[in-house]
Amino acid sequence: MQKEIKRIALLTGGGDCPGLNATIRAVTKSAILNYGYDVIGYKFGYRGLYNNDFMSLTLNSVADLLPKGGTILFSSNKDNLFDYQVEENGQMIKKDVSDIAVQNMKKEGVDALVVIGGDGTLTSARDFSRKGVNIIGVPKTIDNDLGSTDTTFGFNTAIDIATEALDRLTTTAQSHHRIMILEVMGRNAGFIALESGIAGSADIILLPEIPYDINRIVDKINKRKQEGNLFTIIVVAEGAKAKDGKVIVSKIVADSPDPIRLGGVGNKLAADLENIIKDQEVRCTVLGHLQRGGNTCTFDRILSTRYGVAAVDLIKQGKFGTMVCLKGNEITYDNLENVIGNNKLVDKNGELVKIAKKIGVCFAD
Amino acid sequence: MQKEIKRIALLTGGGDCPGLNATIRAVTKSAILNYGYDVIGYKFGYRGLYNNDFMSLTLNSVADLLPKGGTILFSSNKDNLFDYQVEENGQMIKKDVSDIAVQNMKKEGVDALVVIGGDGTLTSARDFSRKGVNIIGVPKTIDNDLGSTDTTFGFNTAIDIATEALDRLTTTAQSHHRIMILEVMGRNAGFIALESGIAGSADIILLPEIPYDINRIVDKINKRKQEGNLFTIIVVAEGAKAKDGKVIVSKIVADSPDPIRLGGVGNKLAADLENIIKDQEVRCTVLGHLQRGGNTCTFDRILSTRYGVAAVDLIKQGKFGTMVCLKGNEITYDNLENVIGNNKLVDKNGELVKIAKKIGVCFAD
Amino acid sequence: MQKEIKRIALLTGGGDCPGLNATIRAVTKSAILNYGYDVIGYKFGYRGLYNNDFMSLTLNSVADLLPKGGTILFSSNKDNLFDYQVEENGQMIKKDVSDIAVQNMKKEGVDALVVIGGDGTLTSARDFSRKGVNIIGVPKTIDNDLGSTDTTFGFNTAIDIATEALDRLTTTAQSHHRIMILEVMGRNAGFIALESGIAGSADIILLPEIPYDINRIVDKINKRKQEGNLFTIIVVAEGAKAKDGKVIVSKIVADSPDPIRLGGVGNKLAADLENIIKDQEVRCTVLGHLQRGGNTCTFDRILSTRYGVAAVDLIKQGKFGTMVCLKGNEITYDNLENVIGNNKLVDKNGELVKIAKKIGVCFAD
Amino acid sequence: MQKEIKRIALLTGGGDCPGLNATIRAVTKSAILNYGYDVIGYKFGYRGLYNNDFMSLTLNSVADLLPKGGTILFSSNKDNLFDYQVEENGQMIKKDVSDIAVQNMKKEGVDALVVIGGDGTLTSARDFSRKGVNIIGVPKTIDNDLGSTDTTFGFNTAIDIATEALDRLTTTAQSHHRIMILEVMGRNAGFIALESGIAGSADIILLPEIPYDINRIVDKINKRKQEGNLFTIIVVAEGAKAKDGKVIVSKIVADSPDPIRLGGVGNKLAADLENIIKDQEVRCTVLGHLQRGGNTCTFDRILSTRYGVAAVDLIKQGKFGTMVCLKGNEITYDNLENVIGNNKLVDKNGELVKIAKKIGVCFAD
Repeated sequence: MQKEIKRIALLTGGGDCPGLNATIRAVTKSAILNYGYDVIGYKFGYRGLYNNDFMSLTLNSVADLLPKGGTILFSSNKDNLFDYQVEENGQMIKKDVSDIAVQNMKKEGVDALVVIGGDGTLTSARDFSRKGVNIIGVPKTIDNDLGSTDTTFGFNTAIDIATEALDRLTTTAQSHHRIMILEVMGRNAGFIALESGIAGSADIILLPEIPYDINRIVDKINKRKQEGNLFTIIVVAEGAKAKDGKVIVSKIVADSPDPIRLGGVGNKLAADLENIIKDQEVRCTVLGHLQRGGNTCTFDRILSTRYGVAAVDLIKQGKFGTMVCLKGNEITYDNLENVIGNNKLVDKNGELVKIAKKIGVCFAD
Repeated sequence: MQKEIKRIALLTGGGDCPGLNATIRAVTKSAILNYGYDVIGYKFGYRGLYNNDFMSLTLNSVADLLPKGGTILFSSNKDNLFDYQVEENGQMIKKDVSDIAVQNMKKEGVDALVVIGGDGTLTSARDFSRKGVNIIGVPKTIDNDLGSTDTTFGFNTAIDIATEALDRLTTTAQSHHRIMILEVMGRNAGFIALESGIAGSADIILLPEIPYDINRIVDKINKRKQEGNLFTIIVVAEGAKAKDGKVIVSKIVADSPDPIRLGGVGNKLAADLENIIKDQEVRCTVLGHLQRGGNTCTFDRILSTRYGVAAVDLIKQGKFGTMVCLKGNEITYDNLENVIGNNKLVDKNGELVKIAKKIGVCFAD
Repeated sequence: MQKEIKRIALLTGGGDCPGLNATIRAVTKSAILNYGYDVIGYKFGYRGLYNNDFMSLTLNSVADLLPKGGTILFSSNKDNLFDYQVEENGQMIKKDVSDIAVQNMKKEGVDALVVIGGDGTLTSARDFSRKGVNIIGVPKTIDNDLGSTDTTFGFNTAIDIATEALDRLTTTAQSHHRIMILEVMGRNAGFIALESGIAGSADIILLPEIPYDINRIVDKINKRKQEGNLFTIIVVAEGAKAKDGKVIVSKIVADSPDPIRLGGVGNKLAADLENIIKDQEVRCTVLGHLQRGGNTCTFDRILSTRYGVAAVDLIKQGKFGTMVCLKGNEITYDNLENVIGNNKLVDKNGELVKIAKKIGVCFAD
Repeated sequence: MQKEIKRIALLTGGGDCPGLNATIRAVTKSAILNYGYDVIGYKFGYRGLYNNDFMSLTLNSVADLLPKGGTILFSSNKDNLFDYQVEENGQMIKKDVSDIAVQNMKKEGVDALVVIGGDGTLTSARDFSRKGVNIIGVPKTIDNDLGSTDTTFGFNTAIDIATEALDRLTTTAQSHHRIMILEVMGRNAGFIALESGIAGSADIILLPEIPYDINRIVDKINKRKQEGNLFTIIVVAEGAKAKDGKVIVSKIVADSPDPIRLGGVGNKLAADLENIIKDQEVRCTVLGHLQRGGNTCTFDRILSTRYGVAAVDLIKQGKFGTMVCLKGNEITYDNLENVIGNNKLVDKNGELVKIAKKIGVCFAD
């Protein structure tokens, strides 16, 4: 597998994430300017690999691309070629079509493939690597939960957006003495909630890693009232859970002028708190997809660029089956086998949680 | 009532709105610097008027206040002194306590009251005016639906925020070929949806003033697909309604990892569209309180300042029972009797709807 | 000239201005979707008209264009085809080559030309109109000084940027008790300085329309000191002038570690003030081209769209030799003959200057 | 000096920097909530220490402070108590008054002093430490050049602002085929220029650490022209220097309508380039104080908070004479003796410069 590299390919898989285009640009520019590689991009993630659907990537393709959200190679969330839905004999079945992908790459003379994605996408990348494909992975996730790397791109843009939302909700909370809840992304890891919570002066932060006791939340709200603070700001990660696991389902008044929104931990918490705290209004805002899109923040533009250039260097050095990583300030790499299955979680005894507690933030634990 | 004015009071009522503090600042500075008035502010809207709960407003009180969201006088949503909930003989009843408010103002030597608020707050203001209190109203609402004035403050900040949200959702829609719905404020009037929709390149805008036919929405989505645009952006005002009035309630999967959010027209529309359009994902983001808070935009800082100064000039001229207005570029005023009950609605045959249609926006009518 | 319109052309001339691309998009979409016109765009302003250098404009050309600063048709500042520099017999001379431009348009079957530009560009447009070319003008200038229209596009983005700069300079001024000067664009008209000054809480606003007395500035600074405000924020339009016309030129210390910047009224004022006021530092920031570029603000996206659609409607109606205008909230039009030479200036007795004075702003007059 | 800590003090010295208030807030909250310390803040940096001018810092004092630029303790640039200008016998002399400061702290029962500042401020801090005062330093500088710590607060906000400025200048450059120069802060170290240059897609980055050859700049501009890119973006640190040290001073046309701005490396470079490159316009924007002020970015809010909490922990642990540091992701500390005199410079052979070169950025070396 150490034949001379002439053509490399990229694909972007999984959810949208600020920094995808910046990475595509860095890989393309670095490959062309430094090593004379030819560069193509498969479209719609692995689906493009299966359908042999790709486009040429030139210096022109990536002009003006650095700040832009989205990905010029599009993406798809659900395409695992090792377990892919195809039509066979009139029926939809799932089968392993990865060999077709490998054949396609051979056919197009692709010597190496840079896979930019999160957990699911990089798991497939590792599987392709095991089949002998020359793979370099680049870590992408809003949640920052990928293992081996301290920071994935997209994460800092997401906490910028969440912090800005908290700034906005704070003034409303103060004027109307409300309890405002912001639900942010973070299925398993609460990094977005933790860092935006600190940056956004939240009073309570609820993480998946620290199951919460609703009574602690109520205590904190009451304590603030006694101190003369008649409002409270709560940030909750979408994967946060109550300690006792019970969910108090609120009544839906579907056709009323102000229907109660159900679903998701933020909305449920809002409903539960309104049942307990009678003299304050509780409102929940779900940031959702706003965290994924739009312009890429400065930090992510730089990180994506560092990752993209490093990925091409790894190709040059023949170090395949790896993923570029950030450790402290150093760009390095780790074997994909070490990355997959070793997702990061917030260390509840770590420095960030500790300093948050030291400035008075409550985690309701 | 044309005795010499020595002391004036302000209050801010109703929902939070960027520009409240800017208005307080303009009234206070103008009153002190130009006419030597003494200025006080009642806290928590009319509740403060009832409880005689007020604070002094000096030049120092309003330093650094111009850009800030929220209101240093706080606010409350539900206090109509003409139908106020009080405890009498151990029971909670509703009664007219407006005379107490009038007495309080007399007791504190308040010669004129500036009321900054929306529909409900200004209705009470008109009622106090009918009782002989010297009232000047200032029009505040995110929705921009107050009559007599072309633009209320807070509106332009809201459309800035909504437009920025659309910019963010667009990149995600493009990458993943999704249908993204943004639900914005606007119970009865669709100004926010209309203007942010135009500024945010929306493909479909749904207004309360134009009941929509879901089939027209589906047609537009399909038409875009044929043209090679595999994504669609929809802005929907919270008060928009389907033509046939029927609501298809989606199944709640309360404990699944990805619960379907119910409630509100945006969420319902998302669920309905997902049932019809099988090959594209549909996501809804509800902007909610993000539209009300945080820094005030440039336009609203200037408009609030113009309104505040004009309100004090009207006091000086003894023109009570009025509300300051913006007509075109002119600051003027109208009688509160003309304002109340004459809320604005988007003119579906007006220029803005027409130009939107001319650049290809669909209103699903 | 009332033959059937089949093909229309656009050009963008003069300085960069947020909203150019939005206008191009609105003209193109409206022309194609509503009237089936063919659309081309001349590149580099009038230079493209002379060189017959143009590109096709289709719906695809203008996708994603609405928020973008700059112009996909490029521009040039200096090309007046009525007095154009050409090489003739080895010498550079200036001559009228407008007939060549007219011929080019005839050759390409251009039935109407939309000219998007400011003073200089629209003067040529009026001249072409006098020659019988079907012209529609669209008013563009950061300064907002074009006659006949209340607001040009680009202006509101510029005041947003200037206001944000003032927000930033204010914290520094407060911490270090400095006098901070922000120089903004506005050669003859001080609209940017006036409106950003109001929105940015400036203490002193200096406009070209109101020659300033430096002693009034010093008085204001001292008065603020007495009131306990040890900092002062000054906004000055680049075309502002001292009453006595004298300019005190500061000593250049060219190779010192902190050279004094000379040039432009802001820098000169800073140097002059530092000579007079010994116990406070004075710093000047020149916003320059930052006001012209980058994303277009919400207001300008909408205004440019309204202008673009209206321009195409005017073509349809055969109302040539006109420029689209905004009067109050109405989109209308005026004859180019009325526009040229009737630039707007800030009315020093108008409402905006008056309200600024009423909240304590000093104009040093 | 290991007596029980009861009262601690803070001061903020040197230039304005986003994050000062965030640090004050973190120190105050952490000290009060965790250790019951009493907290005071000296005003105007060391001047307050000399004049015994201080204020109490309570939880109320620091409410709403996290995002705010500036410092509620004010600051001063020039007050070195070891060489302080005082009036003695009618004459202004300089003398060491540090003992007075030490006496003042003893008198007020100050057990430890947290000094938040840059190079100069922390040098004095080290000197006070040598005299036996209990000192903890917190590293503040826009330039990020302080030794021992990877990142000072304020730096990331500065590169955000510079990157946004580059985004704005880029559209103008593209429309008008100009060469746009942005001069950013960085007297000795070019970190701001380097990182904003990468994030802002600059074509040329000029650092103090890499003396530039103007011919390399011209080559790059011409090369871009040949590639069809008729514009160029240059970021230059204020301390950058030409290789040959010569400065071509441009002619000042002081009273012309468009005076050439002299002073500072950016302006000089613009003038020099305009003399060499005849067919493109060159414009320089000096960001100046815009980089220091206004809201603190998310990253800096978190870093300042971590620093502030860590400083109080060091007091608790009695580890005086130190400065909190960030190494990679770890908060740690280093002896002030190691910090002073060991300022960081950009490593011209380091990874960031290398990756910039790999994506085509020119350093004109």
